[in-house]
Amino acid sequence: MKLSGFPEWLPEQQLIENEFISIVRNEFELWGFSPIHTRSVEPLDVLLRKGETDKEVYGLNRLQGEGEGASASLGLHFDLTIPFARFVSENRGQLKFPFKRYQIQKAWRGERPQFGRFREFTQADIDVVADGPLSLAWDAEMANILLSVMSKLPIPAVRLCINNRKLLEGFMLGLGITDTAAILRVLDKLDKLARTEIERQLLELGLSSDQVSKCLQLTSIKSPGTGFRSQVEQLGVQHELLLSGLDELEFVMKSVSHWPEGSVLADLHIARGLDYYTGTVYEGQLKGFEKLGAVCSGGRYDNLLGDFGKAKMPGIGVSIGVTRILSGIFDAKAVAASRSVPTCVVIVLMNEESRMETNEIARQLRMRGISCEVYHEAVKIGKQIDYAAKRGIPFVWFPAQDGADHQVKDIRSGEQLPASLQTWLPPQSDAKPTVTIKADSQN
Amino acid sequence: MKLSGFPEWLPEQQLIENEFISIVRNEFELWGFSPIHTRSVEPLDVLLRKGETDKEVYGLNRLQGEGEGASASLGLHFDLTIPFARFVSENRGQLKFPFKRYQIQKAWRGERPQFGRFREFTQADIDVVADGPLSLAWDAEMANILLSVMSKLPIPAVRLCINNRKLLEGFMLGLGITDTAAILRVLDKLDKLARTEIERQLLELGLSSDQVSKCLQLTSIKSPGTGFRSQVEQLGVQHELLLSGLDELEFVMKSVSHWPEGSVLADLHIARGLDYYTGTVYEGQLKGFEKLGAVCSGGRYDNLLGDFGKAKMPGIGVSIGVTRILSGIFDAKAVAASRSVPTCVVIVLMNEESRMETNEIARQLRMRGISCEVYHEAVKIGKQIDYAAKRGIPFVWFPAQDGADHQVKDIRSGEQLPASLQTWLPPQSDAKPTVTIKADSQN
Repeated sequence: MKLSGFPEWLPEQQLIENEFISIVRNEFELWGFSPIHTRSVEPLDVLLRKGETDKEVYGLNRLQGEGEGASASLGLHFDLTIPFARFVSENRGQLKFPFKRYQIQKAWRGERPQFGRFREFTQADIDVVADGPLSLAWDAEMANILLSVMSKLPIPAVRLCINNRKLLEGFMLGLGITDTAAILRVLDKLDKLARTEIERQLLELGLSSDQVSKCLQLTSIKSPGTGFRSQVEQLGVQHELLLSGLDELEFVMKSVSHWPEGSVLADLHIARGLDYYTGTVYEGQLKGFEKLGAVCSGGRYDNLLGDFGKAKMPGIGVSIGVTRILSGIFDAKAVAASRSVPTCVVIVLMNEESRMETNEIARQLRMRGISCEVYHEAVKIGKQIDYAAKRGIPFVWFPAQDGADHQVKDIRSGEQLPASLQTWLPPQSDAKPTVTIKADSQN
Repeated sequence: MKLSGFPEWLPEQQLIENEFISIVRNEFELWGFSPIHTRSVEPLDVLLRKGETDKEVYGLNRLQGEGEGASASLGLHFDLTIPFARFVSENRGQLKFPFKRYQIQKAWRGERPQFGRFREFTQADIDVVADGPLSLAWDAEMANILLSVMSKLPIPAVRLCINNRKLLEGFMLGLGITDTAAILRVLDKLDKLARTEIERQLLELGLSSDQVSKCLQLTSIKSPGTGFRSQVEQLGVQHELLLSGLDELEFVMKSVSHWPEGSVLADLHIARGLDYYTGTVYEGQLKGFEKLGAVCSGGRYDNLLGDFGKAKMPGIGVSIGVTRILSGIFDAKAVAASRSVPTCVVIVLMNEESRMETNEIARQLRMRGISCEVYHEAVKIGKQIDYAAKRGIPFVWFPAQDGADHQVKDIRSGEQLPASLQTWLPPQSDAKPTVTIKADSQN
């Protein structure tokens, strides 16, 4: 029975997910992030601490439990941030700060499944957390890591939008607005609601029509480089916090100036309103797949540990929605694997008597990193070749007979050539299944 | 709060688990197994179908659920076999048989945590399932895959014990015993109970003292090669099924004859009694870590799909207990990683003005696969070197000043040499953290 919200992939898709995760992991490690992996469960009081009822936590109960406290007090985590904070708090004495970690795991939310939204999904997170001030350099670094990893994945191009909460809040304070959190929550809906509805809600919160107009002018500013600064300044609002937000965003935008046009944007409507961010915020979409929503996001927060720790620990992090991205590109058939199995060579079993020698051929090929299988029965050669063909396996190996050479057949071209067991290698492009983006999905 | 039964590793241990899983995955793929990954949850009726109350299933409930059927009917899987069977049944039309898959995932059991037993743990499984007869060649193949993957892991040596259920059952039938299942369940406790207690239980089941004596003589047979055959024949029991079991075990043992002495054993006391196996059975232990129990096990079954499918599908599979092995070797400090972070090089930030050029050095090193970090602040060089030293990062890079060369310092030896950004590479042994087995844990 398929369960709505709990996606599963076929083997040829799973090969793509594995390749995807391996690229992400490799990139995170190239930037010096260490892996951690937290348990899937947390005490319910940890998960519900912030009144996160919108996250729809799954509670656990032991069906054969003895009724005492052992059960019912645990739930599955709904993100990787809360478990990370708990882990840092618990292992603080054994970690070195600034602590840079990546974490690629599943999370669960009981919410109603929709396009791109699942009840079980995989996230790939990186965060840096410090035990003292956290340099602005990290805000630039995070943007560059995200752009770097997304550019290496076999997916359509990403557009990364960056903003700064200080800029937004400082601007509002400069306008004389005090309850900035409520306003941010409304502005966060700019992508979802009509502009008139946003205006209505802002007016309802007590803003003057001039304040509403200024806010909407601000949030409509977008620039590929640092051009946003003069556009904000033209609005004539002054505040110390605004200035600090402008400086920070300018620093970050300068650090990404070497990326191709269109891949990164200062976009002043990004608020990540429901989150706990306090400075730089990020949100990325796939070009041509905007309907999926944000496929990566994150930002800077002042106090990761929240209630866990005594001292504040500032941090900054981003999260890549692995399942969301894959569901989108699988749905659109935007990527394909060159075959459904890792096998590169099927070795023909000529007869039952030669099984041990044939296994030895396989052993030697594997020693040199070539994925291969000995056909499991000494049946007609045509049937053995057919097994390979059906799975997209490119080569069939004919063991040496009566002192002649081994032979390898490329079953796509039909070409069959002598081959040495010590030196034969498949072309690089055939060694492993390769993943390609379909041309018409690239923008 | 640490939760008993839900282990978590520190980053330097997580690097070891990742390396471990990467070796397992690579080896499975070299043998031509395709990856799948199933959802973590199954409907409760699927999980409880076989009355598996000893598996202590964790049920799920949505804390914010609306009280209707959406919740309470799901549970976390307790192994990877039931989800695999359900997956094959569901996707049968899209899979090619024989279907070879590997699956490396977490599973959950609510049972009381003990040494080597956890409530959340990672398993690495491979299975082959056929839509017709499944050649005995796979029984040999599975043993060789297990021996191959275990020999490549940074763990103490494995001792793989192999037996055959037909041999056991045929022997008992030949002795005139009919309720072989009940006897197998008792014999399965040979490792746990005293011999006199086993005898008592067998007598209680109605066996004669001669039958008991023969059974215990049979289960005490162990041989590194095919010597078990003559020892069984000397017991003078005759049955067609026994003969077939002897032939099968002999075939499998011949196929593993090239492995070093002591790594594989025909061990006639292995029954895997509580499982559904019908032919070859496997069970492996780590030498010097016998206390951990079986770290890998599996066998052949006649009908994987059970109640899922209409037609019978025979299969054979083995499972490696990743968390059990790691917990054992971490506990004994039997392995160590050469450092706690992936980073190989820290690039010194000489001053704030040179940040962009310094980032460019990092970008170029990463392009050539070198894991590196630009130090995040332009502080004293000693502090930057100290950051590297504390984390076991072997190299510090000094960017070229005033037209001179770049310089790289090995902070272990103190040696500092000019280096070219285009060609410098760390020694192979320093490129990534390496995992080594401590000499005194090797047997």
